[in-house]
Amino acid sequence: MNEFDLIDEILAVLGPAAEGGVIGPGDDGAVVAPPPGEVLVSSIDTLVGGVHFPLGAPGRLVGYRAIMVSVSDLAAMGAEPAELLVALTLEETDQQWALEVAAGMREAVQATGGRILGGNLARGQRNITSSVHGFCPEEYLLTRAGAQPGDGIFVTGELGGAAAAVALSTLDDLTSPLTVRYFRPRARVDAGIVLRGVATSAIDISDGLLQDLDHVLRASGAGAELASSAIPVAAGATLDHALHGGDDYELLFTATRVPAGVDCVQIGTITDRSGIHLDGAPVSIKGYVHFL
Amino acid sequence: MNEFDLIDEILAVLGPAAEGGVIGPGDDGAVVAPPPGEVLVSSIDTLVGGVHFPLGAPGRLVGYRAIMVSVSDLAAMGAEPAELLVALTLEETDQQWALEVAAGMREAVQATGGRILGGNLARGQRNITSSVHGFCPEEYLLTRAGAQPGDGIFVTGELGGAAAAVALSTLDDLTSPLTVRYFRPRARVDAGIVLRGVATSAIDISDGLLQDLDHVLRASGAGAELASSAIPVAAGATLDHALHGGDDYELLFTATRVPAGVDCVQIGTITDRSGIHLDGAPVSIKGYVHFL
Repeated sequence: MNEFDLIDEILAVLGPAAEGGVIGPGDDGAVVAPPPGEVLVSSIDTLVGGVHFPLGAPGRLVGYRAIMVSVSDLAAMGAEPAELLVALTLEETDQQWALEVAAGMREAVQATGGRILGGNLARGQRNITSSVHGFCPEEYLLTRAGAQPGDGIFVTGELGGAAAAVALSTLDDLTSPLTVRYFRPRARVDAGIVLRGVATSAIDISDGLLQDLDHVLRASGAGAELASSAIPVAAGATLDHALHGGDDYELLFTATRVPAGVDCVQIGTITDRSGIHLDGAPVSIKGYVHFL
Repeated sequence: MNEFDLIDEILAVLGPAAEGGVIGPGDDGAVVAPPPGEVLVSSIDTLVGGVHFPLGAPGRLVGYRAIMVSVSDLAAMGAEPAELLVALTLEETDQQWALEVAAGMREAVQATGGRILGGNLARGQRNITSSVHGFCPEEYLLTRAGAQPGDGIFVTGELGGAAAAVALSTLDDLTSPLTVRYFRPRARVDAGIVLRGVATSAIDISDGLLQDLDHVLRASGAGAELASSAIPVAAGATLDHALHGGDDYELLFTATRVPAGVDCVQIGTITDRSGIHLDGAPVSIKGYVHFL
């Protein structure tokens, strides 16, 4: 099968998830019309075979996760996904696996919104790079800066499940609920949109609660006091997984009040004392460092 | 060196080429403001180490080429580059090489316009994926469809040099002019913008003159008659390299008249007879197929 035939098969699997642009796949570039007055929000992420997913992992799960991981960054900015581009690098024998990846991507895109309107195929070690693009009125953008002393600190969902799956090496056991946590994160696009004009800062938890909170604190010039008892630990995970483990892709945000319409819990308060304190004691950050 | 330190060093090398967004590198997403009334044009391309460039190739050349290859798709649509995202997958020992890649990218971006406002680092086989984004008034978009019988067929620059470099295996000889052709294509952004409202169709020559012309003909529902003597063959290359070789990244376009302000030559005419004829005889396409 040559490149063009495989592209046609991938597009057939993507179906409606690859339609809807002013110009979609098939020309030199994909084209979308920005909503008037809104800004373009973009992010790019890569999953490498054997590094970010086991080589034996089903393509459907890997494709789903690749989209969710990238779109999560749009959610953290309050943007609504519009256009996604996917660069697949595949081994020569990966054609069937590529179609499974496309099926997982279709499922993810149908959940998050947006369309896959462009892509690239290359040969090499399995590498899935997703470039995702959404729009948001500029005045509603959520950024890492903006947390103020007195703001509550909130997280969506439950934390630590994905880290527990990695720590407990369950990734090869597709029946484990922890493995599901790892492979099937849900980008919190709906929450991000509800939080427009409500959250004073936001980030998605990709590197670990403490490390990502630290990013917010550095950008905002503030500190944080957390209550360990308030942190929502996923079933099967420990508080340590929830504090230090990455890959949950929940939203961490600050706000002056509990926001309506978002499934979240308050885990602490922004302070003017620098650093992060947990139950009153300073904590050190052991976030996931992706690249050494 | 950890991920965050390497990102800081890369950003320092990129310098002004990574500045200028509403929000640049450092938050969950990069943010740019679309020019009012213009559409977003996007493309993504991957270069794999050992496949698209020799592993011994200097990072500066590879980084430069990665940007030009991707931006060339924007040029072919008539778009002006605005935002670029770069996903680098690197071996553990590639940190110095990554900084050379960044230097090459800076040089390319300064030539084509736009800014590198986001990226990703991962570990694995060398893989450089560039996602590029520009803007254009919708009514001026250049597409593959639109060529009409009687239109002239034009190309910018000279063809076949990159293919000759690959065929003659000069890529390890950095002093060869052919190697320079391969590594230092120039995305024809300026020509694409001049051709807005002038060209009836356009494509960049990445897979080979005949194959890319075939894409235009299929999208436009037309045929082509070429004159071999008019095809601008690069020094050191043959007509065969020019017809069938990829990687030149010149523009191929059709127009009802010779456009002013674009360095180009007419190589043929669009006809209502299907297929491509060269000097009156039908030719078969032996374009570069990137993925088997």
